[in-house]
Amino acid sequence: MAALNDLVIDDVTVITMDSERRTMRDAAIAVESGAIVYVGPAAGLTRRLEQMPRLPGRGRIAIPGLVNAHTHAAMVLFRGYADDLMLQEWLTTKIFPIEAELTPDDVYWGTLLACAEMIKSGTTTFADMYFFMDEAARAVEKSGIRASLCVGMGSLAESAGGSSGFDAVLERGSSLCESWNGAAGGRITTMLGPHAPYTCSVPFLSAVGERARGLGVGVHTHISETFREVDEIRSAHGMSPVEYVESSGLFDVPTLAAHCVAVSDDDISILAKHGVRVAHNPGSNMKLASGVAPVEKMLAAGVAVGLGTDGAASNNNLDMVEEMRLAGLLHKVTRLDPTAVPAHACLEMATSGGAACLGLADRIGSIEIGKRADIVLLDFGAPHLSPAGIADLMSHVVYSASGADVSAVVVDGCVLMDDRKLTTLDEREIMAEVECRASRLAEEANGKLRK
Amino acid sequence: MAALNDLVIDDVTVITMDSERRTMRDAAIAVESGAIVYVGPAAGLTRRLEQMPRLPGRGRIAIPGLVNAHTHAAMVLFRGYADDLMLQEWLTTKIFPIEAELTPDDVYWGTLLACAEMIKSGTTTFADMYFFMDEAARAVEKSGIRASLCVGMGSLAESAGGSSGFDAVLERGSSLCESWNGAAGGRITTMLGPHAPYTCSVPFLSAVGERARGLGVGVHTHISETFREVDEIRSAHGMSPVEYVESSGLFDVPTLAAHCVAVSDDDISILAKHGVRVAHNPGSNMKLASGVAPVEKMLAAGVAVGLGTDGAASNNNLDMVEEMRLAGLLHKVTRLDPTAVPAHACLEMATSGGAACLGLADRIGSIEIGKRADIVLLDFGAPHLSPAGIADLMSHVVYSASGADVSAVVVDGCVLMDDRKLTTLDEREIMAEVECRASRLAEEANGKLRK
Repeated sequence: MAALNDLVIDDVTVITMDSERRTMRDAAIAVESGAIVYVGPAAGLTRRLEQMPRLPGRGRIAIPGLVNAHTHAAMVLFRGYADDLMLQEWLTTKIFPIEAELTPDDVYWGTLLACAEMIKSGTTTFADMYFFMDEAARAVEKSGIRASLCVGMGSLAESAGGSSGFDAVLERGSSLCESWNGAAGGRITTMLGPHAPYTCSVPFLSAVGERARGLGVGVHTHISETFREVDEIRSAHGMSPVEYVESSGLFDVPTLAAHCVAVSDDDISILAKHGVRVAHNPGSNMKLASGVAPVEKMLAAGVAVGLGTDGAASNNNLDMVEEMRLAGLLHKVTRLDPTAVPAHACLEMATSGGAACLGLADRIGSIEIGKRADIVLLDFGAPHLSPAGIADLMSHVVYSASGADVSAVVVDGCVLMDDRKLTTLDEREIMAEVECRASRLAEEANGKLRK
Repeated sequence: MAALNDLVIDDVTVITMDSERRTMRDAAIAVESGAIVYVGPAAGLTRRLEQMPRLPGRGRIAIPGLVNAHTHAAMVLFRGYADDLMLQEWLTTKIFPIEAELTPDDVYWGTLLACAEMIKSGTTTFADMYFFMDEAARAVEKSGIRASLCVGMGSLAESAGGSSGFDAVLERGSSLCESWNGAAGGRITTMLGPHAPYTCSVPFLSAVGERARGLGVGVHTHISETFREVDEIRSAHGMSPVEYVESSGLFDVPTLAAHCVAVSDDDISILAKHGVRVAHNPGSNMKLASGVAPVEKMLAAGVAVGLGTDGAASNNNLDMVEEMRLAGLLHKVTRLDPTAVPAHACLEMATSGGAACLGLADRIGSIEIGKRADIVLLDFGAPHLSPAGIADLMSHVVYSASGADVSAVVVDGCVLMDDRKLTTLDEREIMAEVECRASRLAEEANGKLRK
């Protein structure tokens, strides 16, 4: 009898994103126990595989599930709450006051909404850093999506109380790893999440690195998001943020660094030397006016680069299809070179690059035998994706499609959405709950600000 | 008895985009004979208006129909055919050879596909410049959309044959105006379309201006799309492209100038002095790596600025919701200022700004009494637009939504789409026809290139 995570996708066009970058028409994909066991001509399926449950592939294009390499999922609660403001005003008058009101249940429901949104736009894995991450993990477990979770940890605010604050913070981060690493059948992995150079001391970063080695996990941090950060770290410590983190020894463990907008050529050499992975967030970097990360230079230096949406308060959606397009367009106009970051590079960053960022390159990021079956089907029967015959299908996915063209999503061989209907989540219930919670949070935050 | 273009949209949230920039909840809009006769509290409808056919507004937000201020609609035939190439290679090895094979019927079907795509993403009016424009006009007439059409005219290639070529080109452009200006119940207007400074001589531009005055129409052209164009015009004529066109007297007639990427402060003063309107095309300018138009400076100088997608060969879709977001994000990161081109400025460019570009400011561009009823309803019941209560709804439309969130479209009081079903066009038939035609065109173009 077929298991829940056995299935065949037939009659489909496949963009494999494996090392051969193949596009196969009239193909089939077979999945057993959540793993891909066949990718090839539909005619090549064995009789046994042919008898597995079907997900129709006709008129659809299969791509590897998209990997959102950096977000703060529960911040969907604040979507549209504060836009078009200067960074300091945005943080101090809007985001920090409302975040201070968050409860664990708010983070649970916010993360559920984010999971619903991500599944509906083709994301199958995300790297998350936030508070109350046990609740985020419960939301991930329920939704069926894959995630790498960490608690955002800073030492500089908390360390006012001495080393006890420092330890308590590290314990919170470690505890998530002990409880959840490898949970949900392996869908949930964890990291430690030292927040950023400007919120973490060097001794704290060193302690985080040591703890990560002990736990056997990587770290997820922000580095050089803005030029202002570089100026501040340089004037306080005489080093760039990349050099500052390097000096702590943190880079000796696998590190995912979000943003890396304001990095020099020397910084890039350091990132490459230590195998640091970078999450590029074009939408957020544009909206917050942070600047343009030198993605082509980092790729040329051999740095693994993934794509992230960042939180919905600065994006304002979690649509990775849009994020691919932004990456392609932004670097072309910045470099004044129409061949910069072509469509296949965008799709690579959003799939195999993201998998590498999360330390999951052996499990996800491409449609090939042996990988977990994280697969997205896009429906190509729409005017904005027509004509298809003479088109480069990667161009269509990157430059013409939107998340709304995703018709079906499979994670670990389980169908999380088909015909745009979610199978694990009740989106109406989630939206209603989030609506109430967001209103309460805004009211509480504004009440305190008025005092 | 109610006419075909009488209707009431009830229980709706309205973003009016009138001079007061109001957002009204629990409102109603009434339309008689295609004109807006009421916008206000649902309770304020008279009994007579209440009895008109209803378009349900609950859970929907009404915005003015979006105006695509610059495109080459039929180029959807070449969507995804040639991307990530240098401009000259893109033009000479791909676009020019395939355009040379176009027949009038191809343009008819390509324009129909573009109309379907535009209606489905909330565009109700577009400014088009291409070949075989009588066929484009027939497609516009059939689809129910509103458009300002012109024949793209160049004098420099054709004038090799002497002034007879020059005159023949001008006749083609004029003939479209004579046949179609004011047609389809006023939905179709026309302009003359001198292509660009590098394809039109000064005497030709002067003749176009004189003819436009005679016909009582405006002109639609491209100016300063690239820095290369500026260099070429300056070295040939000792003037910037803006000065070159000004010297011809063309600006004495109402002029819509697409792109204006590479314009100086002096150029902007000239544009402002003559009331030249500018179509800003962020997606195309980014993808072709042309550069970033100084939109804030132009707006500050009092220039009317609209938004356009340009053709689908360089975008690669005609989604004006996406174009609004690109405008907002691009200028923030370019200026390193998160308050640059805020959400309401993006929505203004896409509605009232576009209306001004096309010389239709008195008829469309806002939801207010006396304007034609060109109205778009967005469905806000989706995870990526949640929560709505605490959000700035303009932020949601500009930074979170996509064209796929458009659920209903009204032009001149006629419902062209409801629940995402087109009422005037058969999209499956159109896509099938375009698929065949695009394949034939590519085959013919490649056949000749191989010779």
